[in-house]
Amino acid sequence: MAEPEAIIALDRIFKARSVAVVGASADPAKLGFMTLDSIVKGGFEGPVFPVNPKAREILGLKAYPSLKAIPKPVDLAVIIVPARFVPAVIREAGQAGIPGAVVLTAGFREAGRADLEDELAAAARTGRVRFVGPNVQGINYLPNKLCAMFFPVITARGPLTVITQSGSATAGLSEWAVREGLGVNAAVNLGNQADLTDSDYLDYFAADQTTGVIALYLEGVCQGRRFLKSALAAAAVKPVVVLKSGRSAAGRQAAASHTGALAGRHQVFAAACRQVGLEVAEDLTSLFDRAKGLAAIKPPKGNRLLSISTSGGMGGLAADEAEAEGLSLPPLPEEYRQSLKAESLSPLSNLSNPLDLGYVKVEAFGRAALLADRHEAADVILLNLGDPVPGAVEAALELGRSLKASLAVSYLGGGEEEERARFALNRAGLAAFPSPERALRGIGAAVRAADFKRRRGGERPALADWTPPTPGRGGSTRLLTEPEAAALIGDFGLGYPEHRLARTAGEAAAISAELGCPVVLKIVSPAAAHKTEIGGVMAGVATPEEARSGFETLTGRLRNHRPGAELAGVLVCRQAEEGLEVIVGGTLDPVFGPVVMFGLGGVQAEALADVAFRVAPLERTDAEEMIREIKGFPLLSGWRGRPPADLEALAGVVRAVSRLMTERDDILELDLNPVRVYAHGALPLDARIVTAGK
Amino acid sequence: MAEPEAIIALDRIFKARSVAVVGASADPAKLGFMTLDSIVKGGFEGPVFPVNPKAREILGLKAYPSLKAIPKPVDLAVIIVPARFVPAVIREAGQAGIPGAVVLTAGFREAGRADLEDELAAAARTGRVRFVGPNVQGINYLPNKLCAMFFPVITARGPLTVITQSGSATAGLSEWAVREGLGVNAAVNLGNQADLTDSDYLDYFAADQTTGVIALYLEGVCQGRRFLKSALAAAAVKPVVVLKSGRSAAGRQAAASHTGALAGRHQVFAAACRQVGLEVAEDLTSLFDRAKGLAAIKPPKGNRLLSISTSGGMGGLAADEAEAEGLSLPPLPEEYRQSLKAESLSPLSNLSNPLDLGYVKVEAFGRAALLADRHEAADVILLNLGDPVPGAVEAALELGRSLKASLAVSYLGGGEEEERARFALNRAGLAAFPSPERALRGIGAAVRAADFKRRRGGERPALADWTPPTPGRGGSTRLLTEPEAAALIGDFGLGYPEHRLARTAGEAAAISAELGCPVVLKIVSPAAAHKTEIGGVMAGVATPEEARSGFETLTGRLRNHRPGAELAGVLVCRQAEEGLEVIVGGTLDPVFGPVVMFGLGGVQAEALADVAFRVAPLERTDAEEMIREIKGFPLLSGWRGRPPADLEALAGVVRAVSRLMTERDDILELDLNPVRVYAHGALPLDARIVTAGK
Repeated sequence: MAEPEAIIALDRIFKARSVAVVGASADPAKLGFMTLDSIVKGGFEGPVFPVNPKAREILGLKAYPSLKAIPKPVDLAVIIVPARFVPAVIREAGQAGIPGAVVLTAGFREAGRADLEDELAAAARTGRVRFVGPNVQGINYLPNKLCAMFFPVITARGPLTVITQSGSATAGLSEWAVREGLGVNAAVNLGNQADLTDSDYLDYFAADQTTGVIALYLEGVCQGRRFLKSALAAAAVKPVVVLKSGRSAAGRQAAASHTGALAGRHQVFAAACRQVGLEVAEDLTSLFDRAKGLAAIKPPKGNRLLSISTSGGMGGLAADEAEAEGLSLPPLPEEYRQSLKAESLSPLSNLSNPLDLGYVKVEAFGRAALLADRHEAADVILLNLGDPVPGAVEAALELGRSLKASLAVSYLGGGEEEERARFALNRAGLAAFPSPERALRGIGAAVRAADFKRRRGGERPALADWTPPTPGRGGSTRLLTEPEAAALIGDFGLGYPEHRLARTAGEAAAISAELGCPVVLKIVSPAAAHKTEIGGVMAGVATPEEARSGFETLTGRLRNHRPGAELAGVLVCRQAEEGLEVIVGGTLDPVFGPVVMFGLGGVQAEALADVAFRVAPLERTDAEEMIREIKGFPLLSGWRGRPPADLEALAGVVRAVSRLMTERDDILELDLNPVRVYAHGALPLDARIVTAGK
Repeated sequence: MAEPEAIIALDRIFKARSVAVVGASADPAKLGFMTLDSIVKGGFEGPVFPVNPKAREILGLKAYPSLKAIPKPVDLAVIIVPARFVPAVIREAGQAGIPGAVVLTAGFREAGRADLEDELAAAARTGRVRFVGPNVQGINYLPNKLCAMFFPVITARGPLTVITQSGSATAGLSEWAVREGLGVNAAVNLGNQADLTDSDYLDYFAADQTTGVIALYLEGVCQGRRFLKSALAAAAVKPVVVLKSGRSAAGRQAAASHTGALAGRHQVFAAACRQVGLEVAEDLTSLFDRAKGLAAIKPPKGNRLLSISTSGGMGGLAADEAEAEGLSLPPLPEEYRQSLKAESLSPLSNLSNPLDLGYVKVEAFGRAALLADRHEAADVILLNLGDPVPGAVEAALELGRSLKASLAVSYLGGGEEEERARFALNRAGLAAFPSPERALRGIGAAVRAADFKRRRGGERPALADWTPPTPGRGGSTRLLTEPEAAALIGDFGLGYPEHRLARTAGEAAAISAELGCPVVLKIVSPAAAHKTEIGGVMAGVATPEEARSGFETLTGRLRNHRPGAELAGVLVCRQAEEGLEVIVGGTLDPVFGPVVMFGLGGVQAEALADVAFRVAPLERTDAEEMIREIKGFPLLSGWRGRPPADLEALAGVVRAVSRLMTERDDILELDLNPVRVYAHGALPLDARIVTAGK
């Protein structure tokens, strides 16, 4: 959970009442100048102390030769001296009793100087100095007018807090927020995170009163599970959007098992974030639009959208994007249509959803929206403006105050009128976007966040209380035999076709008679990890006599393919009934630890990688959601007249795998492939489990 | 092909030397004022004649009571009178010898007054007046400074020509082009297209010297095949991007056959556009970005991208998006790396691709790009700026002149410096984007367009010479029996398992002996359109004796399920070898006529709708491309050690279906499901064909 010390430290950093800039320079080309200049231009109201042994005054401020020489208390040291001097400066800060620092200087771990970074961190620990960085653009905390960042100087306040691993993303997102009228609450650049980390910032800004929404740009996380806990706690109190780069690297990692090969880290990251209630963005523009929607659209009560437009085109584009965002555009209630007709709108109007008012004045928008609200036609209303609409700002703000439904604005093709209005609306806290598709990304985010809160309410996923074990997972691994694997999943409540191990052909015949034919014969040998590849499986064995000869055939194939291989025997299994096949698997993600995978069985599903992931342990809702998430889900829900699959039983299998992966920390990989799903029940037909150890 | 008369008419409209505005008004709230005002503000240099019987002068221009009263020649009548007066005005224009008109007035077909629109069209034909509209925002042709559009007034010239079915899209795209520095060549709003249509505009602007790129926003097309011909001809001489709304309506149409059900019109539209070399955009922002890339990025020689950045983050985001756009980021050639090292870059640099220069001055960007060019490291270089970079404009323009590789700029997080620079670069004809992902959409478009030209060069898809027949396709339809269907596809060169029709059980036994067992038995009856649903197929029939009893079983099932059904017999087919199954189908798209579908066989592929479409007739390249287009293609190309499928044979089946759909205009639906594809050869195992007529 949150580390109170880190939160207190960050509070002292962001709310510092006095700041020293070590490495301040009078040369406008230097970062030491730019940063001091930003602090001054940002309007910081406390004392600012440039530290530079060679200067007497910089930017009209008295300079000091060292931190110690400053005669007044300093809350925050902003450091921009060359890397090799930074540890000494931190040491001095500790000695001077300065509690916090922002180390802008680069040239540490990222430049091959991990030693210098370790020295810096050690000096900070000794001196009890908590710090941001090193290798950062800086911080900007607008409630304190503290812009300790060499670029850009942002002073327009708003709800957006930006936490990023890229200075350019910090600057870009902040500037977009200013240009669009949204405004910024805080911006912080993560840098090397030698002390304070992603999770600390998330904890801090979750509690920060003036933060309305948190936008994260990440290239990775320091500790997967801690990040999820912080994200879960943050998302419970305010919206969080995340963009992670590295999508294109996904799927490159080689892995032994089927499940492992599909566990591209990026997909797991996105799934984990959604699992704790974060909104996941696909690119920077979408990160910004989704953050704006989350900051400035009242939490929608559902996913029903009404687009009100003067432009059929804009309405159509909104509808297209709405589908992609999982929103519905329900038909207009008949009473609403009737009341609209009574309004004597333009003859060019089209009374459907999207609603096209034809060419009208702003008042018609207002009436159409208010009537929609009265008839409960939608949970979210999009004012989809596609021409200059004088008076749009006042009308939209008035609607924002009076509507029960949530409201957002798209404004396009309205010239300077449009630019002014968009800015004014965002400034006033009503989300306005420059195109229908961008509006829909913001609306989609708002709908999903509200939906998550409704569904998950007070419920806190168990993963928040789960601590990853640290077993000695390096070194040797072992593939369980099939009977061992079947027994293990049996311990976790999963069924398996009735089976016994035959050590001789005679035993195979006897067991098959006992179980009742048809049976399936499967070779059991540590040398046959992938049984089918050596023809080690024989299905539809119809008589004990066939079982006897089948035993000889399979053991013969093993001898052919793997001469001298150890033979444990042949597993005789009662043949299960036909049914739809799915895969349920578990693997260890390098960042988040145990994860569970679900997908349809068969080579096509594998080739199309139509699979869903969740971080274990899964709650019931997680299991249900991941089953519904795959594109092939319709096959499970009564495809072309087939009986629907028993989704509850299937969710039970998924959750059993989750428990297994969580409770048994020696499991490296697990594949139940296939699991047959019936109208009643679900049954694993094969189990492949790799454990750590010999 | 292009209609010369329409092109000449449009030339006279866009290049009109004198304009009358019928319905000009002195009331600033009226469109009749706004349009006249736009013409004046647009800087039109010829005479402008307001026509309004109640006014003597409007906006300082002498007003006339009617078109006939104008004492000088008029080239173009811009009409904004109420709909009921429009036919009379057009009649008058014809009498006055005015060759062209733009009818802004709405209230025709779109408002239920098709009669009035027909009257208008007839009057125009009689008077030999060609016209734009009705129901349009207007036209803007900047080379003639003719802004006959009630909104917006755009005067910043550039390469972009916008043709849209939405006034808001026209205005929005034009304004974006102006704000970003790209500039506009022409904008035209399609409206109801009662005379001049989408294809006419496409033909005209393809030939228009000052158009650099055409951006289309469509909600449909007037004539599918003519549109494709115009698009093909246009794309051969200049880039064209298209956005079509209605994606979310796709797949809603019910259809009898499997292929029909998957032929969502939107997917067919996108496939058809790509087939003729158009770039397809997914939303308005992407339409704009792709158009910008096509206008202002030199045609790339290949798809190898190098991103040069000072920001690891921006590089990573560019790489993510590059993959989505089908670009590769190859590793840096070793000699290039060495030469970069010799440049003594920042110690923070990361010499891979994306290339991160650390924090450097603009000169380093230039050197890195020039060295990349010398070592032929990439086909496209993205200057991926993520901080204020003074001098970036001059440096980028110089690179644009000297590089062999194509060049584009992403500029983000650079404050006012960035905004100015992006504008200046676009103004100077070098594509500059506000984020890496948006840059990649432009680059992706440029790469695909250049690739299409290279691959298709002078080759003109046969579909340009194909004229859709107009058979009496309404009314009754007929399902061919399987032997008939097999014979028909045989006429087009396709194989089928050897088969004979058995009319008795004895014949079934005899035929199976003759063909050689195992055989497959299939019921043949007009009452069993879907054989498997009534258990009408029996595979693996091992002996003539089994065939004899199988005949009785199948005919029994038919009697059970369809009492009294006519029985043609039982088809005895030699059983084909196992193999991967695919579907090849044909259907009639309501817009484009015969189209061909390809996908993997099986219920999963169907549920995931992983299929590709092409408009028939297909060339070899089309067939090859559509096979490679499906997500499941890896299954055909040697999945997990299997032998690769015979793609040439498969392409042959696809093209045979294309010929069949093209040459036989009575075929409504055709499904070859499955087609087995082997390492050598491909064989349809079932054929279902529905024809028009009894």
